[in-house]
Amino acid sequence: MEETSGNGGAHLRGPVLIIGSGLLGASIGLGLRAKGVEVFLSDISPSTQAVAEDIGAGRSVDVAPQNFSPELVIAATPPDVAAATILDALHSYPRAVVVDIASVKVSVREAVEAHAGADSQRYIGTHPMAGREKSGPVAARTELFITMPWVICPTPTSDPAAVRTAEALAVDLGAVPVRMRAEEHDEAVALISHLPQVMSSLVAARLQNTPGTALALAGNGLRDVTRIAASDPSLWVQILSANAPRLVGVLEGVREDLERLIGTLMGPTAPGARLDMAQLMSEGNAGQARIPGKHGAPPQSFARLTVLVDDIPGQIAALLTEVGEIGVNLEDLRLDHSPGRPVGMVEVSVLPGKHEILVDELTSRGWKVIQ
Amino acid sequence: MEETSGNGGAHLRGPVLIIGSGLLGASIGLGLRAKGVEVFLSDISPSTQAVAEDIGAGRSVDVAPQNFSPELVIAATPPDVAAATILDALHSYPRAVVVDIASVKVSVREAVEAHAGADSQRYIGTHPMAGREKSGPVAARTELFITMPWVICPTPTSDPAAVRTAEALAVDLGAVPVRMRAEEHDEAVALISHLPQVMSSLVAARLQNTPGTALALAGNGLRDVTRIAASDPSLWVQILSANAPRLVGVLEGVREDLERLIGTLMGPTAPGARLDMAQLMSEGNAGQARIPGKHGAPPQSFARLTVLVDDIPGQIAALLTEVGEIGVNLEDLRLDHSPGRPVGMVEVSVLPGKHEILVDELTSRGWKVIQ
Repeated sequence: MEETSGNGGAHLRGPVLIIGSGLLGASIGLGLRAKGVEVFLSDISPSTQAVAEDIGAGRSVDVAPQNFSPELVIAATPPDVAAATILDALHSYPRAVVVDIASVKVSVREAVEAHAGADSQRYIGTHPMAGREKSGPVAARTELFITMPWVICPTPTSDPAAVRTAEALAVDLGAVPVRMRAEEHDEAVALISHLPQVMSSLVAARLQNTPGTALALAGNGLRDVTRIAASDPSLWVQILSANAPRLVGVLEGVREDLERLIGTLMGPTAPGARLDMAQLMSEGNAGQARIPGKHGAPPQSFARLTVLVDDIPGQIAALLTEVGEIGVNLEDLRLDHSPGRPVGMVEVSVLPGKHEILVDELTSRGWKVIQ
Repeated sequence: MEETSGNGGAHLRGPVLIIGSGLLGASIGLGLRAKGVEVFLSDISPSTQAVAEDIGAGRSVDVAPQNFSPELVIAATPPDVAAATILDALHSYPRAVVVDIASVKVSVREAVEAHAGADSQRYIGTHPMAGREKSGPVAARTELFITMPWVICPTPTSDPAAVRTAEALAVDLGAVPVRMRAEEHDEAVALISHLPQVMSSLVAARLQNTPGTALALAGNGLRDVTRIAASDPSLWVQILSANAPRLVGVLEGVREDLERLIGTLMGPTAPGARLDMAQLMSEGNAGQARIPGKHGAPPQSFARLTVLVDDIPGQIAALLTEVGEIGVNLEDLRLDHSPGRPVGMVEVSVLPGKHEILVDELTSRGWKVIQ
């Protein structure tokens, strides 16, 4: 496979062709151009492509030189046309490494291997674990991938140079490449991405006819559980279809637990009923505790305190200045205040060892610290 | 019912007796004492009561005067002993208004009416929509109820003066009293509180044996959906049991949707399969869009922008100072940075009409604003 342009180093040389200029394609373009890599773009929608060009994500493939031979072609098209895009790219650019970034990997690889023959050695399936609630090139961000895992799925027949090129793409965009088999990836996302999406949508779907008086009582629990229910249906139909076999297995486990719970709740005073409910809740405790924090930090590794402030945002600025003076690093920060009211609460997360000193110092400086 | 001590005005006179000195009981005590109301406490656990006294939530009922006759008794015991606490209080304090704060109302009221006879006119079921992930008096906050809805469930036979006393309690603690029938309340919380709790636990329970490599790919979607799966099993067993009839109805609806989805995913390329999936996702969109924002603000009423900062927290303080200078009110703020890295992203929420000016002004002042 010495014909491929896969480099042996850590960085892409370019040029790179990105097919599909939506949120992810345009963000990749922005990120690579910030690294000085030459980027060409193509999108089936002329207006999407024009916006992506305008924000600086790359130039139109129409202005590419004659005998254009990209080092890397990135299929950033929707999941249900990813395989067709890859096959077309393998054929049109016989010296290029071709990667896709679809969120399901087995079905795409199977389609590519069925039709591309030996050329599939130049194809590497990848999946950057990044995204936004918004879509389209207007929402693109150079920094979208920074610190995020980027799954790379080589097969035993993959060209090693092509694998290095795929990893260079991830590294150049500030992501962390993670090698994984396609099957392992699809099992993982069925659990950690597709299951929560389905459950969030199932909860939110129940709210369609709920009286407004009931919804007015909603707390942050409901808001958190249903936030991703706002996701784009057309994209998710493609994802759920493509990973259907694995998702069915996960959902059957949920159905079994749900059946048992409904049975228990139909006789809530029967012997063993409370134990059954406690078991489900405890299993939830155990599973939740295993989820790593942001950026792979250990679960629940931060201590939190809440500070009452008024006169937002001047007071928050003053608070953060003093936190800096005290010499404590902020790990996370959330603001909660009622529009129109002068008082708000700032929840500050810090390393557990810094909690006490920060509470003491802020209190002695006159801040109203809760807990 | 002129015998009751229910006042006709907006404020409690006291004294108030709080039975149960956990998170909610102790927070109520702190809040009332901050308003100058005399508070006595009682808890079955001497150490819990001692902590509540130490933090200033009230004095022990043991030091109450002879012929102690509280204006109001608050049953702040766990849901499955709430009815017994109320009955005991109605008997021990024949001139007091008695309220409970359990999160399920029909079963408590039925038990009280079955045993208290005419005395149940002095009992008013209430439910403050507030809480924390932590429990016990150590986690108590004076401000826990500020701006939160506090459901008051009178019946046609309730003493009007007792209803006013219950509402005065809510108002004195900064909450917003909301009158609702007990049945209506229990239907509402089955949907907006108990359903998301069960679904969050069902998702998290699936993660018990997930490989760490898969969990390392987890994004904010999974974190948000499973956050409340960390809740206390023993409390939730009581809540789920007490509201079982209403929750079963809601969960049966979910089971039907889940059954259909599993059937669809077993033949994802069958005619109509994609339409079925799109319908579930769209119903989720529709339900999610109906959830009011924090503090009853219209759903999704804020525009967001992200600013790149380094040198946390000094830079965030500088950013907020400039936001204040620009004259834009901050509605929410989230910080996302990787521990150990010098760069972070601050997501700022503002009224939609202020979005453009803030982006322009911050950009012209040299901030790196995304979107």
